[in-house]
Amino acid sequence: MMNSVPGFLASGISSGIKSDNSKDLGLIFSEKPATAVGVFTTNQLKAAPVILTQEKIKNGLAQAVIVNSGNANACTGKLGFQHATSVSEKVARELKIDNRLVMVSSTGIIGVPLPIERINTHMHRLVSSLSPTGLTDFSEAIMTTDTFSKTILRKASIAGKDVTLVGIAKGSGMVMPAMATLLAYFLTDLSIERSLLLELFREVIQSSFNALTIDGETSTNDTALILANGFAGNEILRGDTNELTQFKNLLKGVAEDLSRLILKDAEGSTKIVQITVKNALTREEAQKIAYKVANSVLVKTAFFGEDPNWGRIMSAIGQAGAAINPAKIAIWFNDVMVAQNSCRAGNIRDAQAILKLPEFRVTIDLQCGAACADIATTDLTIEYVKINSDYPT
Amino acid sequence: MMNSVPGFLASGISSGIKSDNSKDLGLIFSEKPATAVGVFTTNQLKAAPVILTQEKIKNGLAQAVIVNSGNANACTGKLGFQHATSVSEKVARELKIDNRLVMVSSTGIIGVPLPIERINTHMHRLVSSLSPTGLTDFSEAIMTTDTFSKTILRKASIAGKDVTLVGIAKGSGMVMPAMATLLAYFLTDLSIERSLLLELFREVIQSSFNALTIDGETSTNDTALILANGFAGNEILRGDTNELTQFKNLLKGVAEDLSRLILKDAEGSTKIVQITVKNALTREEAQKIAYKVANSVLVKTAFFGEDPNWGRIMSAIGQAGAAINPAKIAIWFNDVMVAQNSCRAGNIRDAQAILKLPEFRVTIDLQCGAACADIATTDLTIEYVKINSDYPT
Repeated sequence: MMNSVPGFLASGISSGIKSDNSKDLGLIFSEKPATAVGVFTTNQLKAAPVILTQEKIKNGLAQAVIVNSGNANACTGKLGFQHATSVSEKVARELKIDNRLVMVSSTGIIGVPLPIERINTHMHRLVSSLSPTGLTDFSEAIMTTDTFSKTILRKASIAGKDVTLVGIAKGSGMVMPAMATLLAYFLTDLSIERSLLLELFREVIQSSFNALTIDGETSTNDTALILANGFAGNEILRGDTNELTQFKNLLKGVAEDLSRLILKDAEGSTKIVQITVKNALTREEAQKIAYKVANSVLVKTAFFGEDPNWGRIMSAIGQAGAAINPAKIAIWFNDVMVAQNSCRAGNIRDAQAILKLPEFRVTIDLQCGAACADIATTDLTIEYVKINSDYPT
Repeated sequence: MMNSVPGFLASGISSGIKSDNSKDLGLIFSEKPATAVGVFTTNQLKAAPVILTQEKIKNGLAQAVIVNSGNANACTGKLGFQHATSVSEKVARELKIDNRLVMVSSTGIIGVPLPIERINTHMHRLVSSLSPTGLTDFSEAIMTTDTFSKTILRKASIAGKDVTLVGIAKGSGMVMPAMATLLAYFLTDLSIERSLLLELFREVIQSSFNALTIDGETSTNDTALILANGFAGNEILRGDTNELTQFKNLLKGVAEDLSRLILKDAEGSTKIVQITVKNALTREEAQKIAYKVANSVLVKTAFFGEDPNWGRIMSAIGQAGAAINPAKIAIWFNDVMVAQNSCRAGNIRDAQAILKLPEFRVTIDLQCGAACADIATTDLTIEYVKINSDYPT
């Protein structure tokens, strides 16, 4: 069975929150309470389900995750919090588990009360649809403007046991994760100690989801959770061992591949561009510059126009408020140097061919230190503007 | 004579820097050295003419300003600096004035060496074209993607004398001035003490050009200069007098009207939107939030879609990294409240009509202090992406 993880069931149905009758309600259930940790949006206006889940997951255990799309339950005040709480309680009752073990997420339009009666009406069907192969339905139920669902499943042998890990994510706009991302759920049958899992999870998210930006927008609902239910039967991972490294590599691979799927589905985009800043004074300075370039609308429209306009990249670098030597900057498109000592260098014609590729790398050498940063981004297209000027309120 | 200021001559010609043979070289000349001050871009990668002019204007006097469009002379290294210096020297020789009195500006493509031989070839014609009515030609010669030239001329009676002030600006993209703006030149026949003029100029620029953003991009070439040649014959303004207030009002009016012209000509835009943040803890916090909202691509595409999507505004507020009370935010479109206590309020239908207007105001009440900020912005349109993905390198 390809899309399943031992001990986990899932489902996804349409409850009528979305007007087009596509799936909008998803559920994950672990046959026993799983070790669970999460990372969440840094947006100060956190959605009600984010606040609720952030609090509940502190216990380190989760057995169910319910997610609705089509409504973010953000900027909905006390009512929104009551709604999130009531959804959680209803799931717990249906599943006959402790309410403290239920995590809640929402994604979609901000500022509209959650249509709680539709969720309630379909709750029984959602629970009775749970199955080991339900992850596909779940991954479809959490989509908003995504054009395809995003699931990566991998297996590895760890501590003598076959371990499975699945990652499921949604997101194609309002994407510049900061400490967390969009919605992403990782399920594994590994047995692992909670604090170790949290440390590992934060580190992996940092180098995958937190290293990409589509439009510089950090949503109110970003949430990434991982549940480890121990069904693999391995001796619980407790310290910095070979087994931990094996699992870290597994998790990293899945998280990075999911990140790429999100970039590939970026609203209206035609290109994936890796922005690499090297030889910066500090990692923070490198990141500041990488994000400024990756989010510059002028740089991103130039990518769309397949124009190796390194001048716009220079201008963005100069605005980042980071320590630079203004006379020492070099820029490459892949292996073609277009600027050296902050002046034109090489043949711009060679760079033009690179800009036509669906994926390429911009390397910025600051020559003032040894730190670096790597951010993936996309182009800004006519289609992006169409999609986002058309999104109904 | 409408478009002239006593004691100032100007000209604008085509020298072949732009490939379409439109005007690309402009000159301003004052019949005697004028008191002069300037404010300049905060971009760390300042163009060669910016560095040169910033240095020269410290003397407090200027008699000529030469500006080319079609080439920014930015990221051009030592050669760029030699070019800017040589243009200045050549102008001084032609005009038979001290080289220290010549200011230089450039605007256009970044990173391409200035075609200095074209400027040299046409220098004599540029100087011999100088005339009291040449400001129109000058204003056309400094345009890049501008669709119309931007000149505001006003007169006032100050200290018993008729005083004239003209402001000329260019800019329609790469516009988020910070301490300066695009290119803007103010000429007046007033007599005024230099330090007083500098103080006044900085204050006025702060509340006009520095209070708008089109795309969050601060260019490498932003420059605003003011030349006061004293031809009005008034007794020199030296202190905080009624006359100074009168001149300040004159300057403020011209600068604000020029700012509006720039917004009206914003690349591809269909709307001007005033973002007002009030009751913030400090002015800095208010500005941070106003800029985050004004530059959010999701907010700006919603404006284009005429969608009163206050949820995107909330999400932008939450990302600004400013002190807020997440439960206390109110949002208005003009006089229609759409959110209160960070939740939906009022009737969104009423707001929809406002979004269809060519100009409207978004007011954000933070309810956590008494400071405010006011930033003008535009929508982000399909046309903006077309223009900026098409700009040739």
